[in-house]
Amino acid sequence: MHHPRIIADGEELRRQVRAWQAAGETVGLVPTMGALHAGHLSLAARSVRECRRTVVTIFVNPKQFGPAEDFQRYPRDLIRDVELLAGLAASQQAREPDLVFAPAAEAIYPADFATHVEVGRVTQLWEGASRAGHFRGVATVVLKLFQLAPADIAYFGQKDYQQTVVIRRMVADLNLPIEIRVSPIVREPDGLAMSSRNAFLGPDDRRRALALSASLRQAVEMVRGGQRDARRISAAMRQTIGAVESVTLDYAAVVDPETLEELDRLDGRAVALVAAKVGAVRLIDNEILNPPAGV
Amino acid sequence: MHHPRIIADGEELRRQVRAWQAAGETVGLVPTMGALHAGHLSLAARSVRECRRTVVTIFVNPKQFGPAEDFQRYPRDLIRDVELLAGLAASQQAREPDLVFAPAAEAIYPADFATHVEVGRVTQLWEGASRAGHFRGVATVVLKLFQLAPADIAYFGQKDYQQTVVIRRMVADLNLPIEIRVSPIVREPDGLAMSSRNAFLGPDDRRRALALSASLRQAVEMVRGGQRDARRISAAMRQTIGAVESVTLDYAAVVDPETLEELDRLDGRAVALVAAKVGAVRLIDNEILNPPAGV
Repeated sequence: MHHPRIIADGEELRRQVRAWQAAGETVGLVPTMGALHAGHLSLAARSVRECRRTVVTIFVNPKQFGPAEDFQRYPRDLIRDVELLAGLAASQQAREPDLVFAPAAEAIYPADFATHVEVGRVTQLWEGASRAGHFRGVATVVLKLFQLAPADIAYFGQKDYQQTVVIRRMVADLNLPIEIRVSPIVREPDGLAMSSRNAFLGPDDRRRALALSASLRQAVEMVRGGQRDARRISAAMRQTIGAVESVTLDYAAVVDPETLEELDRLDGRAVALVAAKVGAVRLIDNEILNPPAGV
Repeated sequence: MHHPRIIADGEELRRQVRAWQAAGETVGLVPTMGALHAGHLSLAARSVRECRRTVVTIFVNPKQFGPAEDFQRYPRDLIRDVELLAGLAASQQAREPDLVFAPAAEAIYPADFATHVEVGRVTQLWEGASRAGHFRGVATVVLKLFQLAPADIAYFGQKDYQQTVVIRRMVADLNLPIEIRVSPIVREPDGLAMSSRNAFLGPDDRRRALALSASLRQAVEMVRGGQRDARRISAAMRQTIGAVESVTLDYAAVVDPETLEELDRLDGRAVALVAAKVGAVRLIDNEILNPPAGV
């Protein structure tokens, strides 16, 4: 099994990406916080399919965690992550990524670091309301990664739907020369969205966590059944989640896919967003709602 | 006289810069707000000397003006600016710049624009304290210009000393792949620092405006004479400026060249900063203070 090269130095990364591009090779970038699961691997596999070269970054970004959040105990296992990426060649009829960038926190945020990127209204809603400063941290590190790995295409998962909206907004507003591609959520067979935080769920909470995906399937069914009142859909989602022991709803809403503002009616494309604490573990999930045209 | 090509489209600009770089040509960038004077021209001439290709941008950036400031009446004369740049070939034994980028405000800030760059503490002091949001606007537009014109080197004037500190901080923090070079202040024969806003000074205020450069010469002389008490130097500057009719001091300070924090003693390199309103016109100026080693 051939292993991707691991580098920690940002300048070395940039030189390599530029050398590939100078040779006419398209470069794909897959930013992750490690603790890779099938969702991440689907992004890496897509990049490998669509780009001549792929860089996977593994960096648990302290700036996107609040002071009371799980930065310290967020799962970290670089060796296992690299093994999983190397295994792509066998498991998905793909090549393995060319490079893993795994920098030290002090290299990304030196002691005198002071700059942040603020992406406005879309960072204030939903996850932004629950996690102050989260998207400022996300936008800042993603902008830095885009500078260190000036790739042609960057891959993100729909699982963090609001994050993809924030990043697309930043890319457009700051004229960043990179294309954003978003891949569907990968789910466990029972419907639970893949998440590095699922590892924290005990057996009871693992079962209870299905409330999130169940509420989203319910939303999809209601739309399929002709329901266009967005508030009725979100109320039903809240009821489904609220009925499960040890699950504390944060939000369930039907929103505009770009502005993320809550909708009253479904006239076009919409997204159902949900966040809840299952025991001590905070999980999010979402589904795109596509009412059939003319119904 | 050969005129530089003028383009308004950011994507066209990026394609051209990248084509030059792909051909192995170094690209220099000179961001300006137009109303060009000898200070700007010295930056353009330096870029032309040091880089194979030079892009001058002319964009009066609304986001760096406060609501009560002079955005509307800031001088604009693109034709004259381009003539001045074309004249470089004759006047400074230089070539003219290759390209002038003069975008429309709506192209830089579409209606749904929402993203800003915040560079922290160095943006809060001095000009930042007097002009809320000013450096946020500067950092944001400079980052955008660096993305649209991904040049190798960008040239800024020392006249806006704090701006150069903010931009260097942003470049370091966000890993922007560009080198910042800062050129000395260009002054009128009587010492007044070149500024597009000097055009607003009536004859009496034009004379009174010399208080700023005089206070800085005084600071340099005090250091040369052995004075190391930074507070005495700034007090003397304040007195010099305060003595002139119709001149309202904003600040005069001796600061650390990188943190911009006010100094008590001059132990190494320092910068004297001054800002004052002369009649209705707000002017800034500065001098680097270099106490001789071992004195």
